[in-house]
Amino acid sequence: MADFTSDIAIARAASKKPIMEIGARLGIPSEHLLPYGHDKAKVSAEFIAASKGGRDGKLILVTAINPTPAGEGKTTTTVGLGDGLNRIGKKAMICIREASLGPNFGIKGGAAGGGFSQVVPMEDMNLHFTGDFHAITTAHNLLAALIDNHIYWGNELNIDIRRIAWRRVMDMNDRALRAITCSLGGVANGFPRETGFDITVASEVMAILCLATDLKDLEKRLGNIIVGYRRDRSPVFARDLKADGAMTVLLRDAMQPNLVQTLENNPAFVHGGPFANIAHGCNSVVATTTALKLADYVVTEAGFGADLGAEKFFDIKCRKAGLKPDAAVIVATVRAMKMNGGVKKDDLAAENIDAVRKGCANLGRHVQNVKKFGVPVVVAINHFVSDTEAEIQAVKDYVATLGAEAILCRHWAQGSAGIEDLARKVVELAESGQAQFAPLYPDDMKLIEKIETIATEIYHAGEVIADKSVRDQLRQWEEQGYGHLPICMAKTQYSFSTDPHLRGAPTGHTVPVREVRLSAGAGFIVVITGEIMTMPGLPRTPSSEKIFINDQGQIEGLF
Amino acid sequence: MADFTSDIAIARAASKKPIMEIGARLGIPSEHLLPYGHDKAKVSAEFIAASKGGRDGKLILVTAINPTPAGEGKTTTTVGLGDGLNRIGKKAMICIREASLGPNFGIKGGAAGGGFSQVVPMEDMNLHFTGDFHAITTAHNLLAALIDNHIYWGNELNIDIRRIAWRRVMDMNDRALRAITCSLGGVANGFPRETGFDITVASEVMAILCLATDLKDLEKRLGNIIVGYRRDRSPVFARDLKADGAMTVLLRDAMQPNLVQTLENNPAFVHGGPFANIAHGCNSVVATTTALKLADYVVTEAGFGADLGAEKFFDIKCRKAGLKPDAAVIVATVRAMKMNGGVKKDDLAAENIDAVRKGCANLGRHVQNVKKFGVPVVVAINHFVSDTEAEIQAVKDYVATLGAEAILCRHWAQGSAGIEDLARKVVELAESGQAQFAPLYPDDMKLIEKIETIATEIYHAGEVIADKSVRDQLRQWEEQGYGHLPICMAKTQYSFSTDPHLRGAPTGHTVPVREVRLSAGAGFIVVITGEIMTMPGLPRTPSSEKIFINDQGQIEGLF
Repeated sequence: MADFTSDIAIARAASKKPIMEIGARLGIPSEHLLPYGHDKAKVSAEFIAASKGGRDGKLILVTAINPTPAGEGKTTTTVGLGDGLNRIGKKAMICIREASLGPNFGIKGGAAGGGFSQVVPMEDMNLHFTGDFHAITTAHNLLAALIDNHIYWGNELNIDIRRIAWRRVMDMNDRALRAITCSLGGVANGFPRETGFDITVASEVMAILCLATDLKDLEKRLGNIIVGYRRDRSPVFARDLKADGAMTVLLRDAMQPNLVQTLENNPAFVHGGPFANIAHGCNSVVATTTALKLADYVVTEAGFGADLGAEKFFDIKCRKAGLKPDAAVIVATVRAMKMNGGVKKDDLAAENIDAVRKGCANLGRHVQNVKKFGVPVVVAINHFVSDTEAEIQAVKDYVATLGAEAILCRHWAQGSAGIEDLARKVVELAESGQAQFAPLYPDDMKLIEKIETIATEIYHAGEVIADKSVRDQLRQWEEQGYGHLPICMAKTQYSFSTDPHLRGAPTGHTVPVREVRLSAGAGFIVVITGEIMTMPGLPRTPSSEKIFINDQGQIEGLF
Repeated sequence: MADFTSDIAIARAASKKPIMEIGARLGIPSEHLLPYGHDKAKVSAEFIAASKGGRDGKLILVTAINPTPAGEGKTTTTVGLGDGLNRIGKKAMICIREASLGPNFGIKGGAAGGGFSQVVPMEDMNLHFTGDFHAITTAHNLLAALIDNHIYWGNELNIDIRRIAWRRVMDMNDRALRAITCSLGGVANGFPRETGFDITVASEVMAILCLATDLKDLEKRLGNIIVGYRRDRSPVFARDLKADGAMTVLLRDAMQPNLVQTLENNPAFVHGGPFANIAHGCNSVVATTTALKLADYVVTEAGFGADLGAEKFFDIKCRKAGLKPDAAVIVATVRAMKMNGGVKKDDLAAENIDAVRKGCANLGRHVQNVKKFGVPVVVAINHFVSDTEAEIQAVKDYVATLGAEAILCRHWAQGSAGIEDLARKVVELAESGQAQFAPLYPDDMKLIEKIETIATEIYHAGEVIADKSVRDQLRQWEEQGYGHLPICMAKTQYSFSTDPHLRGAPTGHTVPVREVRLSAGAGFIVVITGEIMTMPGLPRTPSSEKIFINDQGQIEGLF
């Protein structure tokens, strides 16, 4: 890619339009757009409330094969497809997640697409943006402070300090905060206990904000958060601490979707960013449902590969928000096919058609899985300069055998001009009326059976292993009225199995359930099948060392 | 005050003008105002840089007697005086501090003035505002993460983990975080050690942001932060961790002053908010120096009473920024005079002229102290409904004996119409050319002598007591090149002495120095003379319990 200008150079050269103009094109009057600078704005709650009831546009999900170190370009394709749909004359907008700030100072930033398919302002999106994540951090930590404060002043609710489930959060990669003891230093500082910090995107408040339909619903869900348990194991809720009102006040602005634009001046909502393992990994329901009222086509994406991201998008977000996706795009790259076919990262440049064919099994599995939800599928081959014609043809031929089509997309290098074919195919699928969306399992299925259904139907596993304690816990939750909740699987994103090294399309493997957690506010049961890191660390040489403001006042090193 | 509408009711009824209009009146073009909503905006760095070199307006400091539980209304008077100056035809603006978010969920909010002398939007100012404090929190905690990360990866700088001076911060009242052990849980989480959190306003990054003149100066100061020491006691700096560039990037927007408006639609910069004990307690240098280019009169305030706030304003902020105040207003209330005269809070409603006269000693001391800096003084009597004519006259008579004037102000109830007399007097003093500002002590005085000078000249103490270890530390800093720094006293705000219960104007008392700290980035030596709380706790019934969004979408309980 050496011949291409860098993402940041392209983003800096962008000719942005005033955000009020972008909003006006969507029919949002300026008094309902709260600007943050001249290139970002939040849509008012009043406008959103008033827009309910109108006709919905078509909803297009962009998902992907299992990620590999080669990169697949899911966000880039989401942005490109939105631009492509606008290019062929459709009123389209995109909905993507906000970036977590902390990790940008560790390895690399950039959650705004790439090449000529980016959302701008890139710098802001990778820094504080409109402050949503800071608001989530604050609301989360207010609840934490209220818990320890309640105990300090007498613990009327009889919270067992060994069973406090609510940790603190920070939008930072800081391994030193993973496990701490707090309230040390004597009587004035409270009762010492063990706890720790997670990164903000792992907060249940983040998941709640992304699933809530409005401020009232937000407040109710916040109140439903289980902060810990008494000695008799009965739960203590955030509402017992009267925390829900103040948390809602802190999140008032954060609940409103952020409007920005693509490099081609098309509208984009960038709002919310829950973890894709212990949470559902999609942008906010408010952004998506609002976008569907404003545009004829809404292109959105889900986290990780389709086994995790699309499944949760369908079974959690769409189920709960009543969304009915009209088509899905599965992003693949020739390089990723090769890696799935056994090629090492250093050998990716050499043509290897056999490896491509072998790796296609992973793609095929995702295509078939997505169809199980009743959503028609097209494959987008995100073009890299090293791809050969023969390799591309191998992918196309393979996908054709599945009764689907794979379309080469050059949006990274060409912007919307490089993705017209995909845009036309998406329109064809969406207008065909083929879509018959249904979640994978019904609400009233037993929790353990829901897990087994995902494991067998989506992961093609042979069995689910869960200790008696896990099964007892699931049964207890069913008795307490949580049995109707959907499942949020926390599994490695690199494989259909729980072994990150097992690429391709394994079958008959075992899914061991380590632990289950109830996110009663968000409204799902988290099922943990492996080591899940909720607070990242920084690398030996953090990227922060090279981040600075240059003499032209531009930020260097963030991307 | 029962007959008056509440602060929040008045603020909600405010007829705000678009912030672009307020900016235009100051001569700031819209492209140099970055809006945050329609009622807040940041002034661009380019505009500020371009405005340097012009003529400066008059600088007016509003300070106060030692605070009492009766309240004195310093911010209210600052806002009122700004409006009053505009009313009498002067182009005036005010510069005040931003509010800390955390404490609003503990006892009460409201750092935006009161009655008819308020700055709006009040809700935003007491919540996330434009995100400055969140940016400071993040920059501070990035440095903390980099310290532990550096140690984790081999500790090339040989930081002694027992001597890490840099704690973490959160904008929250959370006593459980005052003292913690971090990096627990095994090898992957680092080396266990003791540390803790302070509230964000206590961060040295806050003090640095408020004293830095531009982004380059900010970066240099951030690099100068001492994060800890090696076994040989040599300091390790933030720049050794290459943290300064990334911290500056995180603070880029936070460095720009926030423009808002008063209830009377006059311009106000609200920017920065360092603690007034372990830091200097004034709004940012950037805001004040920029305001002086934009307005003929700039009214600003300092934290606590004049013994702490005005002294630091003069000796730290004005000294370092080259500011020359033209007049000072000392705010007093009849009620506070009575409390200083020995009356209990419950008995304040009854007329008590003797107590007023007795309490005036405190006011007199502050008047004389401020004059020592060569700044002419006027006293503002902030009117309360319970004040009697005779009590007010007693204060006026007393102040006249000092060769100064005390003027009754009714801005709380009447807005600018109630403070015209004070505005005219301020103009008279400022235009008189009387001001001959000079700091209290020269840069090249020995550090211990600087402390003694403040203690004797301002506090009227008999002596300063400091252990050999403290004196040795001060000498060591002098050898290391820090001897030119000013002193930042951390003393109780309730008394000239270090005993908070000793009201009035004590003399001959002892000032014991417990500890000294070097804020090498901010550029001052903190001298601690008592128990200083840098992380507040929440009360038994936190105000958060009553904060919520009502059915009209308005925030209740925050004020």
